Amino acid sequence: MTENTAPVAGPAPAPQDPLEKFVAVIPAGGVGTRLWPLSRAAAPKFLHDLTGSGSTLIRATYDRLTPLAGGRFLVVTGEAHRAAVCRQIPELDAANLVLESEPKDSGAAIGLAAAILYRRDPATIMGSFAADQVISPDGVFQAAVREAILTAASGERGKIVTIGIEPTHPSTGFGYIRGGEPLDVAGAPSARAVVEFVEKPNLEVAEKYLASGEYLWNAGMFVAPVALMLEHLAANQPELYAGLTEIAEAWDTLARDEVAARVWPTLPKIAIDYAVAEPAAAAGDVAVVPGAFRWDDVGDFAAIGRLNSAREAERVTVLGEGARVFTEDASGIVVSDTKRVIALIGIEDVVIVDTPDALLVTTTEHAQKVKNAVAGLKASGDLDVL
Amino acid sequence: MTENTAPVAGPAPAPQDPLEKFVAVIPAGGVGTRLWPLSRAAAPKFLHDLTGSGSTLIRATYDRLTPLAGGRFLVVTGEAHRAAVCRQIPELDAANLVLESEPKDSGAAIGLAAAILYRRDPATIMGSFAADQVISPDGVFQAAVREAILTAASGERGKIVTIGIEPTHPSTGFGYIRGGEPLDVAGAPSARAVVEFVEKPNLEVAEKYLASGEYLWNAGMFVAPVALMLEHLAANQPELYAGLTEIAEAWDTLARDEVAARVWPTLPKIAIDYAVAEPAAAAGDVAVVPGAFRWDDVGDFAAIGRLNSAREAERVTVLGEGARVFTEDASGIVVSDTKRVIALIGIEDVVIVDTPDALLVTTTEHAQKVKNAVAGLKASGDLDVL
Repeated sequence: MTENTAPVAGPAPAPQDPLEKFVAVIPAGGVGTRLWPLSRAAAPKFLHDLTGSGSTLIRATYDRLTPLAGGRFLVVTGEAHRAAVCRQIPELDAANLVLESEPKDSGAAIGLAAAILYRRDPATIMGSFAADQVISPDGVFQAAVREAILTAASGERGKIVTIGIEPTHPSTGFGYIRGGEPLDVAGAPSARAVVEFVEKPNLEVAEKYLASGEYLWNAGMFVAPVALMLEHLAANQPELYAGLTEIAEAWDTLARDEVAARVWPTLPKIAIDYAVAEPAAAAGDVAVVPGAFRWDDVGDFAAIGRLNSAREAERVTVLGEGARVFTEDASGIVVSDTKRVIALIGIEDVVIVDTPDALLVTTTEHAQKVKNAVAGLKASGDLDVL
Repeated sequence: MTENTAPVAGPAPAPQDPLEKFVAVIPAGGVGTRLWPLSRAAAPKFLHDLTGSGSTLIRATYDRLTPLAGGRFLVVTGEAHRAAVCRQIPELDAANLVLESEPKDSGAAIGLAAAILYRRDPATIMGSFAADQVISPDGVFQAAVREAILTAASGERGKIVTIGIEPTHPSTGFGYIRGGEPLDVAGAPSARAVVEFVEKPNLEVAEKYLASGEYLWNAGMFVAPVALMLEHLAANQPELYAGLTEIAEAWDTLARDEVAARVWPTLPKIAIDYAVAEPAAAAGDVAVVPGAFRWDDVGDFAAIGRLNSAREAERVTVLGEGARVFTEDASGIVVSDTKRVIALIGIEDVVIVDTPDALLVTTTEHAQKVKNAVAGLKASGDLDVL
């Protein structure tokens, strides 16, 4: 058995640069059901170039964090995506690629990263950033992360720092972060306390949030001393904490695979928000740095239209290298994974996603309902295209 | 050189049954551009099952005529379709399959059939029926053709008899036939003289035609003694007549291929309507038998929706054996040539045609504009999918 002693966040790191203690964690999970049939179990969202930039979302995430993390990364993904992730990030060492034998939600994924990094260096400051978000410009994002790192390293115990997105509309699709009093952190002038995290609101509530100016979107970005993360995890989810600790202690040894294979399937499924962030906020240990960058979680195909608006003059946005598209009196989005000719005639706001074995035709207005198609195909046994 | 003497329609055939002199001619040409990408140069409309009957249009045409023609058929098609037509009509003898080395319009195609049949038996009554029309019920059609055959064999010189379709709406997409006085033909009580053929009218004129009760749609069906067909062809298109005669004289000899290859490319392009039907009508040699059967030339994908209305309750009509279609809040037509999963969500009156190398997305309202896509793709050099 593993010795199951919760860490106690020690005094603030020695007066070296906290940035040198920063390790970027990239959880790469989630199929992106609302982006079916482009995104699917075998080729999830983070493995696609959804912005026409030439980079997949996971590679863009890695590149965006490299100026801050140097080569210090930990990527957490499903076993099925090992080869694809290695192709995308060939510089990643095997010891820094955590492969989940089955999905266990973000509590286990981010918690294990924290536990592994803690064993390597208890003074590590981790920053967790999902592999499937679109952010620009990189410089504004990096400045916010820098403030978050300095805030995470501040004070006696440090802080769990979330980067909140300044809302541009009363979204009902995101959770919100309610900011409080400004904190007085050197080099992090925009850091504030977090009063609470709140669930996805209805439209009326979302409009109030927007008008108040007190709320930010919760993009699931956390920057924190690994010790503080683990302290809250141990307090709130002792079973999960024990299992993660056992895996982490074996991680940089020959027993890694055996222990992970045995323990991982036994872990409880819980989101990091419930396992750490919300109780930590209630304890006054959470801060927020507002991010003024453009952010999109590419939740559906309508988002892909927005993200590729540079070509809007043509009325039909086309994504896909080999696409050959003919349009007449048409508008919308074509995402093509094939070299087929696609002709659109007399149809507005259409969304067409063309892959070798599945075709989706919908409208930007109905883009959120794509998950229903996935559920329906699952029910009808068409598992080969999911 | 061929001896170029125009035949003169002789006395009516001996009092044997004119039905025994009947040979069915099936011109199988026309790409069906408005049915792209299903119908295309390599796989034109007549080679598809557009009604879900299990038969291609050409096979259904052949089967519909067999009770009248027995095995007496002549099929005229492009050289590229030789194998496909033989697969569809394996019982067809090579001598009865006329292969065009290049398209020459209906005057040459139907004229050559008349000339070949005349050489075999000058008393032949030919009936020409396009390979790509949908007709039901067969019995009503066959009764009309029987009347047409008896009318074609009537009187001294016989008649060129067209079968006119009783219009169901003021179509602007068809030419019309103006009927005149009833003829007194034994066994053909509905036969009438034809006053004139008229071109596709505008809507206002079409409404007058419909209200008058004097007009029928011109479906391009002709039943006539071959001698009378050739007499008018010789009078109106002597050059075409001479070329066709030269080919026809060589047809049932070893010189067939050589002569056809040499002469066919030199023939003028003209529709049978201008080469024979209209001048013959002006000369009082044309009769019409109204057809009360259901008739559709499957001009566009909206027609395919109408023809498959039995499944209308499902709101999305699906054509294609391997199709796997998921729909939610959707209506329209899916024609699938692939086994791909197709998901339609929140889109009305859509037309989706899915083939291995080309995809069309339009609406029933815009179905007629599909030919523009073909023109556009031709202009952009995407010839591989046309």
